Amino acid sequence: MRLCDLAPAHIRAISPYQPGKPISELAREMGLDEASIVKLASNENPLGVGEKTREAMQRALADIARYPDGNGFELKDALCRRYGVAIDQIVLGNGSNDVLEMVAGAFLGPEREAVFAQHAFAVYPLATQAAGAKGIQVPAKNFGHDLDAMLAAITPATRVVFIANPNNPTGTFIPGPELEAFLARVPADVLVVLDEAYTEYLAPDQRYDAIGWIARFPNLLVSRTFSKAYGLAGLRVGYGLGNPAVIDLLNRVRQPFNVCSVGLAAAAAALFDDDFLERSYVANAAGMQQLTQGFQRLGLDWIPSAGNFVTFKVGDGAAVNAALLAQGVIVRPIGGYGMPEWLRVSIGLESENARFLEVLPDCLV
Amino acid sequence: MRLCDLAPAHIRAISPYQPGKPISELAREMGLDEASIVKLASNENPLGVGEKTREAMQRALADIARYPDGNGFELKDALCRRYGVAIDQIVLGNGSNDVLEMVAGAFLGPEREAVFAQHAFAVYPLATQAAGAKGIQVPAKNFGHDLDAMLAAITPATRVVFIANPNNPTGTFIPGPELEAFLARVPADVLVVLDEAYTEYLAPDQRYDAIGWIARFPNLLVSRTFSKAYGLAGLRVGYGLGNPAVIDLLNRVRQPFNVCSVGLAAAAAALFDDDFLERSYVANAAGMQQLTQGFQRLGLDWIPSAGNFVTFKVGDGAAVNAALLAQGVIVRPIGGYGMPEWLRVSIGLESENARFLEVLPDCLV
Repeated sequence: MRLCDLAPAHIRAISPYQPGKPISELAREMGLDEASIVKLASNENPLGVGEKTREAMQRALADIARYPDGNGFELKDALCRRYGVAIDQIVLGNGSNDVLEMVAGAFLGPEREAVFAQHAFAVYPLATQAAGAKGIQVPAKNFGHDLDAMLAAITPATRVVFIANPNNPTGTFIPGPELEAFLARVPADVLVVLDEAYTEYLAPDQRYDAIGWIARFPNLLVSRTFSKAYGLAGLRVGYGLGNPAVIDLLNRVRQPFNVCSVGLAAAAAALFDDDFLERSYVANAAGMQQLTQGFQRLGLDWIPSAGNFVTFKVGDGAAVNAALLAQGVIVRPIGGYGMPEWLRVSIGLESENARFLEVLPDCLV
Repeated sequence: MRLCDLAPAHIRAISPYQPGKPISELAREMGLDEASIVKLASNENPLGVGEKTREAMQRALADIARYPDGNGFELKDALCRRYGVAIDQIVLGNGSNDVLEMVAGAFLGPEREAVFAQHAFAVYPLATQAAGAKGIQVPAKNFGHDLDAMLAAITPATRVVFIANPNNPTGTFIPGPELEAFLARVPADVLVVLDEAYTEYLAPDQRYDAIGWIARFPNLLVSRTFSKAYGLAGLRVGYGLGNPAVIDLLNRVRQPFNVCSVGLAAAAAALFDDDFLERSYVANAAGMQQLTQGFQRLGLDWIPSAGNFVTFKVGDGAAVNAALLAQGVIVRPIGGYGMPEWLRVSIGLESENARFLEVLPDCLV
């Protein structure tokens, strides 16, 4: 069809992101009861959401025929109070995915380059390609970011460097001081997107304050999400924090009502529910121990993870994944990340982790 | 800041969409009680949402920590049953705004042109500019689309023509047979986006079946929304219907989880609530009569509208708007649409329309 052939070549070449299989889809495909399926594929919070957040969602539903506040005042105000930032340092996204796409739309384009690591989050190369820019993938070191190699990959055409910390899907972690030293060496005219989607799962001795670095590094954009520890994946809320000039550009390419009103209200409430966040952290740490002990018993390799998921080696990832699906257990194959011998499993409830570990031995080939 | 200066010039030149002022914002600014404010600024459904839709939203909240189904199977299945289309003819959007942006992202870009009418929906030029393409604005005829002139504006660089029917903010309407004749004359390698955001408000004798044209015109994309008559503006759900090859390209630039799970569930339920849609139509027709009779009494000009809003002439739109805001009534100034002497008011509840008409005379300057 000539109409479509005339679309830009970099668009026609995109192969879309492959999300974790929804429970409803597996149930349809396999004729299974949805309640019997265990989904550990999308790094969701198995505890759901906290009570205050649930109440905020209910209140927002009452007025759902109204457009959301396109400026997101209430949520931005909450973020200002929580993190000591100013309102013009915040951009809200339809998930942090949207923040990443805004970065690509505002700063990339033909003749421009973005640098990211091998095995890093799939949306970095996708958003780069959709913007018609060139993606530079830097080989990983121990499945994580090789910051020296990434610095060396920066050219005069580089406009953006994407860093995920912890990284998805490998769970690798860069200590704060190393990141800080890296930022000091990146040229001031290159935007560093520090994607902290999983930062709430860091152990106390791993935590660092990237938001506090924004004043020193105007080229730093910290990206976060409510889809993981806050349990709001279904509502699509993320945000970016950075220099007002950077935020202003992102707002120019932002869709005017990119975040739904239920999401705005839920996120503003969730942000202050420290008790729920703490319970989520504790449950995740226990589940991580449960899974890694299971891998050890089975003699499987895994990559130590700072997130709410862990990547383990099975040999033929596609075959083991298919066998797990037949048992009603959904994990994430990561062949698309250049790791066809590995699978990623999210930390679930104790009973879900146990069910996964129970069926896993028979699924190994 | 050099980092931002290096962003593409067409991005730096964007001036973002100006949405209707939220009630909460006016309340803060003016120190007013939110309950005392009448908002007739965003073409929302004053009846809210139907009961079945409300129940569907509640069910979706139960599982909100899960990501939405990125393929939107349930809603697409509902659209297939409702409109007799195939699943690969549907793309879902975060509001129809998202569909328009996907069109720009997939089909436009530097060296490409989009054609749209003067006084047409502001997102057409904005999305065109964000894609780095050239927008061709064709002078309006009687405040509406001049289809012959739009045809004449198509060049070999034209990839997209945007048509809003009815048009926002002027409410003008193109009869179905005229649109069909237009489609037959547009070159096959130019995509025609027919934005039918307000189609549910058409009178029975105005209705036409654009979806039925898709088989004959593979270059037609029909765009619709749940934000208007369906009362789901807060949840951001729209969709595009077209040829599978066109839909496939749009899906390549679509964000993987662009529609929230509450929105997906609510829209699937709302689609079959004919009773609610009929009540909304009847209430809108009565409110339209109430407002236009009011304008007549006041000796004000207005543009006959096929939507759920009406644009009326006041002379100094900015001044009258400011006076209305001071009275706690929010309408929409449309100076940005090249109509600084006009204001657009949405049809509200009978009591809201009455309040607007009551304060309007004192606000005229």
